[in-house]
Amino acid sequence: MVAEIISVGTELLLGQITDTNASYLGRTLAGLGIDLYYKSTVGDNEGRVLETLRRARDRADLILTSGGLGPTEDDLTKECVAQAFEEELVMDEPALAHLRAFFARRGVHMPERNVKQALIYRNGRTIDNPNGTAPGALLEKGGKIVISLPGPPNEMVPMVENHVVPLLTERLSGARQYLVTRVFRMIGIGEGSVDEQVQDLLHTTNPTLAPLAHTGEVHLRAGAKASSVEEAEALLRPLEEELRRRLGRFIYGLDKTTLEEAVVRDLIQRGQTLACAESCTGGQLGGRLTAIPGSSAAFLGGVISYSNEAKVQLLGVSRDLLEAHGAVSAEVAQAMAVGARERLGADIGVSITGVAGPEGGTAEKPVGLVYVGLATASGVTARQNQFIGIREDVRRRSTQVALQMIRETLMGQG
Amino acid sequence: MVAEIISVGTELLLGQITDTNASYLGRTLAGLGIDLYYKSTVGDNEGRVLETLRRARDRADLILTSGGLGPTEDDLTKECVAQAFEEELVMDEPALAHLRAFFARRGVHMPERNVKQALIYRNGRTIDNPNGTAPGALLEKGGKIVISLPGPPNEMVPMVENHVVPLLTERLSGARQYLVTRVFRMIGIGEGSVDEQVQDLLHTTNPTLAPLAHTGEVHLRAGAKASSVEEAEALLRPLEEELRRRLGRFIYGLDKTTLEEAVVRDLIQRGQTLACAESCTGGQLGGRLTAIPGSSAAFLGGVISYSNEAKVQLLGVSRDLLEAHGAVSAEVAQAMAVGARERLGADIGVSITGVAGPEGGTAEKPVGLVYVGLATASGVTARQNQFIGIREDVRRRSTQVALQMIRETLMGQG
Repeated sequence: MVAEIISVGTELLLGQITDTNASYLGRTLAGLGIDLYYKSTVGDNEGRVLETLRRARDRADLILTSGGLGPTEDDLTKECVAQAFEEELVMDEPALAHLRAFFARRGVHMPERNVKQALIYRNGRTIDNPNGTAPGALLEKGGKIVISLPGPPNEMVPMVENHVVPLLTERLSGARQYLVTRVFRMIGIGEGSVDEQVQDLLHTTNPTLAPLAHTGEVHLRAGAKASSVEEAEALLRPLEEELRRRLGRFIYGLDKTTLEEAVVRDLIQRGQTLACAESCTGGQLGGRLTAIPGSSAAFLGGVISYSNEAKVQLLGVSRDLLEAHGAVSAEVAQAMAVGARERLGADIGVSITGVAGPEGGTAEKPVGLVYVGLATASGVTARQNQFIGIREDVRRRSTQVALQMIRETLMGQG
Repeated sequence: MVAEIISVGTELLLGQITDTNASYLGRTLAGLGIDLYYKSTVGDNEGRVLETLRRARDRADLILTSGGLGPTEDDLTKECVAQAFEEELVMDEPALAHLRAFFARRGVHMPERNVKQALIYRNGRTIDNPNGTAPGALLEKGGKIVISLPGPPNEMVPMVENHVVPLLTERLSGARQYLVTRVFRMIGIGEGSVDEQVQDLLHTTNPTLAPLAHTGEVHLRAGAKASSVEEAEALLRPLEEELRRRLGRFIYGLDKTTLEEAVVRDLIQRGQTLACAESCTGGQLGGRLTAIPGSSAAFLGGVISYSNEAKVQLLGVSRDLLEAHGAVSAEVAQAMAVGARERLGADIGVSITGVAGPEGGTAEKPVGLVYVGLATASGVTARQNQFIGIREDVRRRSTQVALQMIRETLMGQG
């Protein structure tokens, strides 16, 4: 089964709304093993909605639309589906009763124009929407399935989970293919190097392997299709083992696991605590770590030493050291890491000091120069980095290196 | 001029990434007054990318693509544009040199496969990408413009602002209608109240006024069209004056000015310094403030007091106080703000302590309960908040209230 998604709404074209429905529907179809080749977005314009629907009708078996089911004259989805599939729209009395009840519960008179929301194809049926006025619409005709859903995600998502997924599962049964995917997330290795190391694995068709772009990390997606989840997983297993053999030490997590999540998990597993000292990142590293629920079991806190005075008062960095080497130096990064570790009584202290830009760079210490320090009971190190990019990138990459160094330290401890 | 957007990448179809590029490009085109009728998303498949490009070529004057410019065999955008427009791809030596320098600066060997990123149409040119390896690609042929940009937003956005917008502005001049828009950003007032106060201004056609959805703030966008920027600005001026008269004290900034930017600006203007103490936000407030270039002129730093020990050691909060009231209390918030102010020698100390969730809530102190403290030379206060939402929302809204309180303090000082 090949699907196509059509998002309807001028506000999507104007970028006033980001189309999270389309990505949600994409994930749902992938989970069902249904191929999706095209997604289209079109405004509230009859001719263009119809053109897009007709093309989808000709190249897909399943069309999912979102948006355009409201009560206004701009809401045209059902009208266009009816045209594209030569259907007549008729009144669905139960849907109309539901609509009237919806308004009555809110103590509001139903505007006459809302009546059109209860129209449905003569050979189709409505899909209940308990969270809004627009019911969904289903048409199965000539071997094609068209499902139209309202735009607001809080209305659409429950309708997909409660009606669309069961319906599609039923239609697929028998010939159904299950897709299992796994994303391998790596740090400490470049995209090109990963690509070279898995070159021979990129051209198979089942399982498949493909790189995913991601700033400061490399992700590979493996996928396998079979008539059961178990079979698909079995197809995936040898590929997964091969990837772990070749790239295992760079893989910090799977699927949606973030680097900060992996680091918090590893800290807790090893019973280690962490403290940080941040200059140019100003709290961003702490912000990433504490975004993870439960991080307080390992992360004790830290110091935002955005001024030299803060480095001296709160971290015990000596004024002599600051004068001799400057705030952006390996020596100060080390002293900051040691200071954070000692002041907070943590096992690991990590520090970041650098020139985030756009101002503040010199020939000797250019924008993008960042030192990341790390202290443990057995010593202290600092890593010099020269990042390219705008302030935001330099800061993000700095926290990325800090997380990477914490991870390497924990792995080195076995 | 009619535009079409094509997003390329199987990860978009699978819903592993939400297409924020398309909405950003949509907003950009709307700002330029360029009509956009269709957006399409297609996977990394040569036949389908080509089909989509050919259709766009036939129905649009301007095609913007994002994604598919990487070094792998899956990256096909330029190859397909070349086919659709009967162009030959040739090596762009300056782009290749830039690419080699990009890797050299990182002390990394450039994989041979990256060479293809420097290929460009014989009759086109590359667009500089200072933040990544993939240059953009521009082709102007047969009255059509095709602009291809890389997928990562941190690479794409600066390229649009620095190259694409100026280029399109140039191409449009002549018969052009200039659209001038201004966004009024407000804090400390709800959406409903704003709506009531500007109800009579929402139904004009030139200038126009419309609310924009934004979590924790209220934004209004005013726009006017005319045959010159000056005329459009003149149309906008009376509306702007009326808005300032009605809502002036809530307006912290215009257009893209963020609240943290406004706060840093106001601090510097008044010669005031700031220190922070963060518990449940873990550095996120510091992260927002230090995202602003030049913030070091006002922001001295702070303490991430994620553990009670950190509150005692680094902020001088008394153990008795912590025991008597608990870490999440108005009393501790005040002590934290005072501690941050004194330890860092700042004019203003601000603090955040709360239950971000999902765990850690009790009947007495539920998830979402957050105290924000603020200390100056003339005293200390704390504000109690009960936020609804997931951990991320609670944390974001906490930093929002902290910034709002700093702003109110500065305004109160005149």
